[in-house]
Amino acid sequence: MNEQWLNDIKWDQDGLIPAIAQESETGKVLMMAWMNRESLSLSVKEGRAIYWSRSRNKLWRKGEESGHVQLIRDIRLDCDNDVILLSVEQKGGIACHTGRHNCFFKQLQDDKWVETEAVIKDPADIYK
Amino acid sequence: MNEQWLNDIKWDQDGLIPAIAQESETGKVLMMAWMNRESLSLSVKEGRAIYWSRSRNKLWRKGEESGHVQLIRDIRLDCDNDVILLSVEQKGGIACHTGRHNCFFKQLQDDKWVETEAVIKDPADIYK
Repeated sequence: MNEQWLNDIKWDQDGLIPAIAQESETGKVLMMAWMNRESLSLSVKEGRAIYWSRSRNKLWRKGEESGHVQLIRDIRLDCDNDVILLSVEQKGGIACHTGRHNCFFKQLQDDKWVETEAVIKDPADIYK
Repeated sequence: MNEQWLNDIKWDQDGLIPAIAQESETGKVLMMAWMNRESLSLSVKEGRAIYWSRSRNKLWRKGEESGHVQLIRDIRLDCDNDVILLSVEQKGGIACHTGRHNCFFKQLQDDKWVETEAVIKDPADIYK
């Protein structure tokens, strides 16, 4: 495979790019994580979201433990070549490690972050 | 205003957080930019998206030149407290400086980025 498309990307000083995952069915923004060259290349090859975990410093095959895999439907790059937008099918309907549908469940209400989305599945049951 | 909600955020080593702007009406992801403490605080106070321009190293009142202001409808924070999701009303229907509706107009097709979205307005006419 020609890898020019990977060279077109403006990787940051750590060799990473932010990747936003949006659910294809609902249009909801599920999460944002980071990718490096290898993880993006593998994501394309395998058709599923593979991120780079900055905390664990290794490839993170989304769903590898939980089964909550993200199948990739579409990959976009922004005007500045420094942000990726994935359209994904979220397996299990849960993207967040807290057991919620998506990671953006804290809503600013007046001057407080208020948790708004229900926990679909207890994390203790997801990661066992 | 109590600023605890700003302290709750996990700012990166540069004091920034990625902010995704999603169009409230269509659910489309318009762009991703960066905010610092001041720009997020001002965004809330003024009800419009104000980013921190890393290239110009100053506050960027989205739409200040183009008129393509983003009115904020909702602000979310993710599970890790390190990504912001804005739901916005995009004035003029153009978020991208290229004159397109949104910034994610390069689609990966086979091994190439292909431009897919129409230019609504010539940038020469936007920034004059």
